[in-house]
Amino acid sequence: MSDTKPAIAVLGGSGDLGSGLALRWARAGYPVVIGSRTAEKAETAARDLAERIPGADVRGLDNVAAAEAGEIVVMTVPFSNHAATLGSVRDAVQGKIFVDVTVPLVPPKVSRVQMPPEGSAGKAAQEILGPEVQVVSAFQNVAADHLADLEHDPDCDVLVAGNVVAARETVVELVEACGMRGWHVGPIDNSAVAEALTSVLIFMNKRYKSPGAGIRITNIPDAD
Amino acid sequence: MSDTKPAIAVLGGSGDLGSGLALRWARAGYPVVIGSRTAEKAETAARDLAERIPGADVRGLDNVAAAEAGEIVVMTVPFSNHAATLGSVRDAVQGKIFVDVTVPLVPPKVSRVQMPPEGSAGKAAQEILGPEVQVVSAFQNVAADHLADLEHDPDCDVLVAGNVVAARETVVELVEACGMRGWHVGPIDNSAVAEALTSVLIFMNKRYKSPGAGIRITNIPDAD
Repeated sequence: MSDTKPAIAVLGGSGDLGSGLALRWARAGYPVVIGSRTAEKAETAARDLAERIPGADVRGLDNVAAAEAGEIVVMTVPFSNHAATLGSVRDAVQGKIFVDVTVPLVPPKVSRVQMPPEGSAGKAAQEILGPEVQVVSAFQNVAADHLADLEHDPDCDVLVAGNVVAARETVVELVEACGMRGWHVGPIDNSAVAEALTSVLIFMNKRYKSPGAGIRITNIPDAD
Repeated sequence: MSDTKPAIAVLGGSGDLGSGLALRWARAGYPVVIGSRTAEKAETAARDLAERIPGADVRGLDNVAAAEAGEIVVMTVPFSNHAATLGSVRDAVQGKIFVDVTVPLVPPKVSRVQMPPEGSAGKAAQEILGPEVQVVSAFQNVAADHLADLEHDPDCDVLVAGNVVAARETVVELVEACGMRGWHVGPIDNSAVAEALTSVLIFMNKRYKSPGAGIRITNIPDAD
């Protein structure tokens, strides 16, 4: 990672998960552009972040303007807004790395795996955005509370799927900047695992009264 | 678990994963019936097992006869044989717990997630076998070598999915009898996670030169 860090746009950055990611990246020294459905909500979220991280390079814009401003664009929106938001930023993200954090939860049975017909939300994003966008899927399994608590790093590994190895590697670095371990898990088709796992973790949180179950990958040689 | 342990039939029990499971259950004191496509192959596998576990209650039969003999029936066959084997044992397993270990790998791209149209092999099994069979999905992520090595327990948790809670609980006990930790992960739809994860672990074994990557669930209170 060079000294000049790329600007990260976080679409849906006023939500719980988006604001947690933006917080961690701002702390790590990345310029952050928070996107939201209205510029006002984004500006409010940006001010909240700046209060927690003095000196942070952060601003708020509506989602489309944020997608234009970001060198790397991260999207965390409810599944019901997935296709529409993708369509609205399609032009703005051409040629960029696009990190899709969407989990295809279908209420009310959010603890039951219900994958979209494309096989995964990540694969659907790649189809909608087109081949010039380097879609990478990640961060679906992290509890938002754990990101917001800067005293502790989340006890959860992050599975990073995408068709372009260099784009995955960039996202693995973004995972590490959040204080977690990121793993290359293969092509965008393989985003199905982390997306489906979220429903399983929601089930387990209830079944085992966990504040936020996660996963660790085991048995990798030389994994520090 | 009472003193009298139920007989476990392992269909496909002459294969790597099936023989590893049979070995662990025989060691734990369960009567084991190894099933294979021919009785001869099953008998050979049963003799091999008996050599490793003196005094084991183990015998070999063809898959259909094994399914009839087992009180709990476990199936580990290649995905290409999944529907056909299910059809052949359908009558024999009515009213029983049926543990499906099948991973929907589609060669040659076995490290790419390619789920069946039903959503998962476990869900397909439930549809084929019908509502009177308590289908439980488990053990897809365990490296066969690790089961065969009785000196060490596999460093991998097991996700246990199925629609009947009591049947899942029985399978969690079978997981523990193998020296691993089993987790309730919800209805049979949720078997998609462990099934898809196998392709990801195959990818990671190559990418990270692992002899058998696995997963652990984190952040469960009071999990010993």
